[in-house]
Amino acid sequence: MTVGYAEDKQNLLRRLRRVEGQVRGIQRMLEEDRYCVDVLIQLAAVRAALDKVGLALIEDHTRGCVRNALVNNQGDEAIDELMDVLAQFLK
Amino acid sequence: MTVGYAEDKQNLLRRLRRVEGQVRGIQRMLEEDRYCVDVLIQLAAVRAALDKVGLALIEDHTRGCVRNALVNNQGDEAIDELMDVLAQFLK
Amino acid sequence: MTVGYAEDKQNLLRRLRRVEGQVRGIQRMLEEDRYCVDVLIQLAAVRAALDKVGLALIEDHTRGCVRNALVNNQGDEAIDELMDVLAQFLK
Amino acid sequence: MTVGYAEDKQNLLRRLRRVEGQVRGIQRMLEEDRYCVDVLIQLAAVRAALDKVGLALIEDHTRGCVRNALVNNQGDEAIDELMDVLAQFLK
Repeated sequence: MTVGYAEDKQNLLRRLRRVEGQVRGIQRMLEEDRYCVDVLIQLAAVRAALDKVGLALIEDHTRGCVRNALVNNQGDEAIDELMDVLAQFLK
Repeated sequence: MTVGYAEDKQNLLRRLRRVEGQVRGIQRMLEEDRYCVDVLIQLAAVRAALDKVGLALIEDHTRGCVRNALVNNQGDEAIDELMDVLAQFLK
Repeated sequence: MTVGYAEDKQNLLRRLRRVEGQVRGIQRMLEEDRYCVDVLIQLAAVRAALDKVGLALIEDHTRGCVRNALVNNQGDEAIDELMDVLAQFLK
Repeated sequence: MTVGYAEDKQNLLRRLRRVEGQVRGIQRMLEEDRYCVDVLIQLAAVRAALDKVGLALIEDHTRGCVRNALVNNQGDEAIDELMDVLAQFLK
């Protein structure tokens, strides 16, 4: 069985490589003793970028796995699992 | 003038290197077609780790730069700036 | 057609009445000049309570409306709509 | 001693009364069996309004109590307390 994000995989990987680069950029800022607030603004940007990856993946998962489970009458567990994950993102 | 996080720098860098490794780990999970929900759980963990770095840096900044500004009667701008940053993290 | 939260309605209403009471309680704290931090702790509690209502309603909606839409081959719009709402909660 | 939000009190109370009205409005929507997504959009709006009240109060507290504590060399505890509260809002 294929994963829900199969068609979106390259897009997600590209975004995550960008996030990885941003995290390295923040390390560099600290090493160069850049002003705290400038570092914090970058941290908030990475956080927002990660949330977008999360949301894209939740969408892929819902369109793929949850939909399949629902159609095959196994929707209850799929939705339980989805809700657990959403609760973690809403924390 | 030193930055607010001067004494905490190695700690922050260590945490960010860990976050960077986690982001690479998530890319690997996608490449291995791991189950969406497992990937999402890791994403939520990275997000929480980033928030902790952000909070630690806000604390350093407040104890260092904001305190200095307040003592030197330049607190108003420092607090304006701090609030702008908090607003970004609360979004 | 019934709403997705039909069976959960009394539970949601009870929680919202409790949130309403908490919001009134915070107004009282302000009128009594209670310490800022105590007020903030209550505000954070109300926020967490609201998030729980939101999550419960998202669950009802997914188990009800989204499931129905998926089974009736109208899942695409239902998931678009769900994602828009999740994006607002993740902000 | 006055609270940090003394001058902002009427503004905060007005906002909280508005939040209270919004929470009652959501109860009414549920009683009228309004569509889940419309209810969720209102919930997200209330959450954003509460965050703004929280941020305004954090600002008042920082400009008032934290500043006073810092000037009187009792800043350490004041900042510890502030960070605990921020951590709750960032959850």
